[in-house]
Amino acid sequence: MQDKEPFLETLRAIVGAPNVLTEGDLSAWELDWRKREHGKALAVVRPASTSEVARVVQACAAAGVSLVPQGGNTGMVVGSTPDASGTQVVLSLTRMNRIRTMDAANLTVTVEAGCVLQNLQEACEKEGFLFPLSLAAEGSCTIGGNLATNAGGTQVVRYGNTRELCLGLEVVTAAGEVWNGLSGLRKDNTGYDLRHLFIGSEGTLGVITAATLKMYPLPKSMLTAFASVPSLEAAVELLGLAQQQLHAGLTGFEVMGQFALSLVRKHFPQQNVPFEGDDAFCVVLEVSDHASEAHARGLLENLLEEALQDGCVLDAVVAENISQARALWHIRESIPLAQAQEGLNIKHDISVAVSNIPDFVRETDAQIAQAFPGARMVNYGHLGDGNLHYNVQAPEGSDAEAFLRDQEKPINAIVYAQVERFQGSISAEHGIGTLKREKLAQHKSPVALGLMRAIKLALDPNNTMNPSALFLP
Amino acid sequence: MQDKEPFLETLRAIVGAPNVLTEGDLSAWELDWRKREHGKALAVVRPASTSEVARVVQACAAAGVSLVPQGGNTGMVVGSTPDASGTQVVLSLTRMNRIRTMDAANLTVTVEAGCVLQNLQEACEKEGFLFPLSLAAEGSCTIGGNLATNAGGTQVVRYGNTRELCLGLEVVTAAGEVWNGLSGLRKDNTGYDLRHLFIGSEGTLGVITAATLKMYPLPKSMLTAFASVPSLEAAVELLGLAQQQLHAGLTGFEVMGQFALSLVRKHFPQQNVPFEGDDAFCVVLEVSDHASEAHARGLLENLLEEALQDGCVLDAVVAENISQARALWHIRESIPLAQAQEGLNIKHDISVAVSNIPDFVRETDAQIAQAFPGARMVNYGHLGDGNLHYNVQAPEGSDAEAFLRDQEKPINAIVYAQVERFQGSISAEHGIGTLKREKLAQHKSPVALGLMRAIKLALDPNNTMNPSALFLP
Repeated sequence: MQDKEPFLETLRAIVGAPNVLTEGDLSAWELDWRKREHGKALAVVRPASTSEVARVVQACAAAGVSLVPQGGNTGMVVGSTPDASGTQVVLSLTRMNRIRTMDAANLTVTVEAGCVLQNLQEACEKEGFLFPLSLAAEGSCTIGGNLATNAGGTQVVRYGNTRELCLGLEVVTAAGEVWNGLSGLRKDNTGYDLRHLFIGSEGTLGVITAATLKMYPLPKSMLTAFASVPSLEAAVELLGLAQQQLHAGLTGFEVMGQFALSLVRKHFPQQNVPFEGDDAFCVVLEVSDHASEAHARGLLENLLEEALQDGCVLDAVVAENISQARALWHIRESIPLAQAQEGLNIKHDISVAVSNIPDFVRETDAQIAQAFPGARMVNYGHLGDGNLHYNVQAPEGSDAEAFLRDQEKPINAIVYAQVERFQGSISAEHGIGTLKREKLAQHKSPVALGLMRAIKLALDPNNTMNPSALFLP
Repeated sequence: MQDKEPFLETLRAIVGAPNVLTEGDLSAWELDWRKREHGKALAVVRPASTSEVARVVQACAAAGVSLVPQGGNTGMVVGSTPDASGTQVVLSLTRMNRIRTMDAANLTVTVEAGCVLQNLQEACEKEGFLFPLSLAAEGSCTIGGNLATNAGGTQVVRYGNTRELCLGLEVVTAAGEVWNGLSGLRKDNTGYDLRHLFIGSEGTLGVITAATLKMYPLPKSMLTAFASVPSLEAAVELLGLAQQQLHAGLTGFEVMGQFALSLVRKHFPQQNVPFEGDDAFCVVLEVSDHASEAHARGLLENLLEEALQDGCVLDAVVAENISQARALWHIRESIPLAQAQEGLNIKHDISVAVSNIPDFVRETDAQIAQAFPGARMVNYGHLGDGNLHYNVQAPEGSDAEAFLRDQEKPINAIVYAQVERFQGSISAEHGIGTLKREKLAQHKSPVALGLMRAIKLALDPNNTMNPSALFLP
């Protein structure tokens, strides 16, 4: 673009001059969450309504300018920041943050894309409802970003991913048209499910501007247990037992390797991490109950008793109150921070069938240990969904920066080859963004990639919607 | 096609001569379930494996021949039978009926498209698991058809539509390639969700050949209640109460208008239909429990007591045993047959937000009563999902055939205008097929239709996959 000014004037006419940012420190929009890439935006544009979004998209289409939609900018895979060219517009949705309507009888809430997840959780809770999506970034991530990346988190075992919580979308297409699909219907078989196509498409097909989401009645009681188990096999056995006895009452099931827990003990000594010792893994287990706390406690104690007798649990504690429950969950949530304190490390967000988790970990651990003696495996994640954060820390005392620089590629190769062998996913909940698009091209089936490319070409023929994400050029 | 013989020879070489049917009575494949249209197939082809399906699709593509995939041929909207031209191949999947694998720890089962739903239900139950999809045609419909049409049924309030029960697909694309997406993963954010695009696409984008589906542990106890309620408002209130007290324990919630029940009493007098009288509606309510029958009974009795006090229930019975429960469900399931006995009628399968059901019915009833004095409204359906079978029976003693012939169009116009006013769906669970494609063109948003057409063109550029379904020529 020779002279940007007329284009910027057009944008200013749509959203107002104060909402077209081109000067000063724009790193809040240009730098990704993990501080891996610092891009350069042509402008950061902050529309306040769906019609403004549509007009911005039309203006960009007319000028041949690419758009990068952005919510809370908390993604893990550099998918919502501009590239370094200075030619892309960042479309920030954070001013569109209203809860439009809540329909108690339909158990739905309609909310704009820029609404922060925690605000939505709190608004629902105030009315006696649960919006179950829950993840580490909930204080700053937005619903639009959660939908665009199909965010996961800790309640998936019961409530599914963001995808499963969405009944309808409002979307601005690549042509700048508004599709109003905010129906709130639980059944609608009138053609292709466009909703699920936009969910998880990472802004490459259009801009999600609002959504109608499911709410649930608040549980009467929630209890948390922390148990040590002798092996991952035992953890899978415990999961099966819990599902059999608790059904939908099982709302959380996380696993943590002993080395991951030892890092929490080391870097956060004020935390009281139970079961220090040789036990291979620990589990955090959450029960939600619609009857009473006494009923929940009875179910949980029965479960743990049976598991102790079966030998799939070695020891267990049940939180006596909410602050104890929070403390137990806090151990699990502190693992990424403890890892960061320990030093740079190589991260993976993989999934396989739950039944394959033990074999996957045993084999992959062995391959890495053989190829990189001393490498320390930090294993934890959402076992109930088959989703592990399988991370590798440099050998003790070694140069973590050099380890990351030199060994990330070969270690990735081992891990992703194993994922492929077990028909797993190289990105269970974080998405592809720009960071993993090369790996997607390597590991996704060519037939699936061909279908994806055909859809992209059909819905975004000029390739202006987040063009750097998902696909290699 | 001047000379069909070389093409038929190619097909015979792929699937074997006995599986290419061209002679004799082919009405099992050519006539739709509701006997509305009798088409004429070029051939009925019955492949036995995914690779045979792929080769048949390739042969058809090479010859420019259209394909109509077919499962149990139990669809309601003439979506799986050939047109009258004699130029379309019916691709019957019923020989591909194996259950390939069951993974207890992953709670998944991988099954071929032609497997009959009831066979899958029974195979799961034998291993201690529930496959919850349940609908009237379950004895003959197939999983492939359930997926292609995103079938609904009576358990959606808890377990969702077929879509929500599917973790992975195997699909033969329009180009005859095989996409193996049978991962069984609960989390996989690696690009567009192709699975959800094929589910519900009614064979217009490719052929579903197998699927990996969710199973659930079998409930320990299931209880059924039958309650009379003073109004639809009261039914919606009862639903809210039930969801609040039972959460996921509520696995069925059906509503039936008193006139619908009177037809069951009239045509099936051996059935003991409770609560004859002036009460406007009755409800069938099902509770599934993971603890015990005593626990379930306690929950259900508490719920009904509170509802009686609130006035949203007038009277209720709870089944004492399984045969009583079956009898209560049987009343609900007998309504379509009782309607048929009463005479031809005008059917709708609509959904609106649950909160809008009372207004929708009151207003639409009034409009029809005014325009067609004496017309009798048969209202029943899956209230928990906002899905009503809103049917209209001719005035008593009048000529039902003439009524259907002359009044279907204007009555449809009233009903679908109301659906549009309430942002509902003109086809909640039956799909579009060829029967409703004109209505789809009238009532679906032009933006959504444009996106659908772009996707169809991208994935089936030669328009050979079930070309008569969904879209008008």
